[in-house]
Amino acid sequence: MTANLLQLNIADGVARITFNNPPVNVMSGSLMRALKHLLHELSGNKEVQVIVFDSANPDFFIAHVDINILDEQEILDELQQSAPEGLNLFQAIGEMIRAQPQVTIVKLKGIARGGGAEFVAAADLSFAALESGKLSQCEALMGIIPGGGATQYLSEKMTRGRVLEVILGADLFDAATAADYGWINRAIPGAAVDTFVDRLAAHIAALPAGVIAAAKKVLSPVRNIEGFKSENEGWQSLVFQPRTAEIMTKAMQNGAQTVAGELKIEELLRSI
Amino acid sequence: MTANLLQLNIADGVARITFNNPPVNVMSGSLMRALKHLLHELSGNKEVQVIVFDSANPDFFIAHVDINILDEQEILDELQQSAPEGLNLFQAIGEMIRAQPQVTIVKLKGIARGGGAEFVAAADLSFAALESGKLSQCEALMGIIPGGGATQYLSEKMTRGRVLEVILGADLFDAATAADYGWINRAIPGAAVDTFVDRLAAHIAALPAGVIAAAKKVLSPVRNIEGFKSENEGWQSLVFQPRTAEIMTKAMQNGAQTVAGELKIEELLRSI
Amino acid sequence: MTANLLQLNIADGVARITFNNPPVNVMSGSLMRALKHLLHELSGNKEVQVIVFDSANPDFFIAHVDINILDEQEILDELQQSAPEGLNLFQAIGEMIRAQPQVTIVKLKGIARGGGAEFVAAADLSFAALESGKLSQCEALMGIIPGGGATQYLSEKMTRGRVLEVILGADLFDAATAADYGWINRAIPGAAVDTFVDRLAAHIAALPAGVIAAAKKVLSPVRNIEGFKSENEGWQSLVFQPRTAEIMTKAMQNGAQTVAGELKIEELLRSI
Repeated sequence: MTANLLQLNIADGVARITFNNPPVNVMSGSLMRALKHLLHELSGNKEVQVIVFDSANPDFFIAHVDINILDEQEILDELQQSAPEGLNLFQAIGEMIRAQPQVTIVKLKGIARGGGAEFVAAADLSFAALESGKLSQCEALMGIIPGGGATQYLSEKMTRGRVLEVILGADLFDAATAADYGWINRAIPGAAVDTFVDRLAAHIAALPAGVIAAAKKVLSPVRNIEGFKSENEGWQSLVFQPRTAEIMTKAMQNGAQTVAGELKIEELLRSI
Repeated sequence: MTANLLQLNIADGVARITFNNPPVNVMSGSLMRALKHLLHELSGNKEVQVIVFDSANPDFFIAHVDINILDEQEILDELQQSAPEGLNLFQAIGEMIRAQPQVTIVKLKGIARGGGAEFVAAADLSFAALESGKLSQCEALMGIIPGGGATQYLSEKMTRGRVLEVILGADLFDAATAADYGWINRAIPGAAVDTFVDRLAAHIAALPAGVIAAAKKVLSPVRNIEGFKSENEGWQSLVFQPRTAEIMTKAMQNGAQTVAGELKIEELLRSI
Repeated sequence: MTANLLQLNIADGVARITFNNPPVNVMSGSLMRALKHLLHELSGNKEVQVIVFDSANPDFFIAHVDINILDEQEILDELQQSAPEGLNLFQAIGEMIRAQPQVTIVKLKGIARGGGAEFVAAADLSFAALESGKLSQCEALMGIIPGGGATQYLSEKMTRGRVLEVILGADLFDAATAADYGWINRAIPGAAVDTFVDRLAAHIAALPAGVIAAAKKVLSPVRNIEGFKSENEGWQSLVFQPRTAEIMTKAMQNGAQTVAGELKIEELLRSI
């Protein structure tokens, strides 16, 4: 299954993981499990210094968590059981990425929303194509708040006023604004983003032994466990409400998780 | 009095509060008291999800705290008595705004200086007209440091080097630089700022029940009471010095709190 | 010696310190000692409110710490002995600048790398010429991580993802990107940077008595001693490795610390 959902290519110290879950790269339970296994495997691979994440889909990096994820209850249970104390299973995905010994880089050429945007925020570095890279925490439009780390990661990156704008405004942000807000490292013209990321990844992979580990240790992210718990409580208080279930059902009926629907999912959700 | 100093309009879950204290919208004791009463009243109004602050004066949002505010000693005593433990009455205004259950948004089309700039910094979100929205913490030119929360709020928003530049440089910042520094959310072309803020306010007001409260709870601002006390001590150590009184008196003689004088108050103060 | 390495000019409350250590302004032990003596002397000078640092060399502000610094072991021992508890001698330089009672301003018209970039980050304010001001933490290319405060100072100024990009990417950053990242206050067109800094320094020096001290006290930087220790441990674990000595030796053979070599030192180091 990993072979299908995640394409892996390793060369010159750089592992490239390509998300491939048509039609819009939803983050399903299967994908989360495959990602977990792959990152665990790579964490013991001394040949790999850098991991670059990209997408096989030109329009979508990761659409968001699969709206039908409860159909995979068994996988969710498995993921929750192995989550660190005090984290829900979605937060555990972000914290797994942040604990990876390699330098993790997102190359964002399409849209990342919800849990996909949280994935981008959890990675060490992120570079977006100026014209096509886009981010959205649109959970509010479904009657919930983000529950996979966004409130914590975004608060590290931008002012509280901008976090509130992102989460409550629930709009799709272009790459230039995301860079202005500190959400990503840089917005780079689409024609140059591959070259930029490839060069940077190669440079980092070629560093003398020990430098990456030392830098990541000194700059290790601080896990504010109370913040994660607070986020989870807020999310849990809303996610099981009838209104949320109703919005999700209607969203699926109106085109969510299809290419056409996802390109304008904020409009679709606001019209429900 | 509220009816005069503050215009209130409520529609579709959005309360609009318009400052109206000619000629330059100084923040007088009366205005602070009226604002306190109005925000207290709105805090219990479940119909209101968003509060947008703007100004009836095209040139000034809030000029600054009234230089003659000591003439309203009775109101000041009343405000100080109801201030939270450890905050002075000006800091209490900012912290009141930050505790408001609604999402607070400043639409900044004119100048906000001193306590007016602190008001902008205390609000959840802030959007400025690119050409005409301007901010200044010009207290240093009167021989004092900001005493209404600026040292704390700005330190959350921008680097220490930029806070020092703002406070000691004491210049009037244009909206683009303010956005670059993280002082405000965005600078928006003047012709588009109404549409932008109206749309955002409407979108937030239309969110499913519970989302705003959950987001504001998880992202509740941290009150560093030691920081507020340190700011207040610094401010108090300077504000009663003869030199400060002399500057304020001469400023009033030279045009402070008139439209012409306030448009270039930094120059006016530096020439004393 | 001070007279040679550091030029001092005091006028109207502003001290200007000009680095002058040809050919590329390396930060030698002698220069660090001279700087320490001069700043100590100035700290007791009530006539000086602002210190502006610039360079006599149009291409380089401070190239980096002298690669041959171990030849000055006696001076290093002296500097280490007087360093505050828990800081190495390089970190002590930055913390000395941060403790200076005056407002410290860097005018960056050339390149600052390594310990020179850490000097820029330690100063209160920093303004770079848009076309020629450049910054790099290129230590990683020598097999080490920064050991003079960069991990701490940069983490105050920009997101963790950008700090990792700066330290592991080890590229030369132009002034515009540095300003976008919060590394410096502003990037200013080269033709205007003198006027801008002179005006700002003069305005700050002219502030009424007590204002600078009060502002610097309220906004005093927080020294995270555990962070400095962690940085020092990471740095120490790498700096004495044979690979690092080999890179430094070859760098010197290939043109490091000459003007031509330093203009492209990242390329030079990557080719070793």
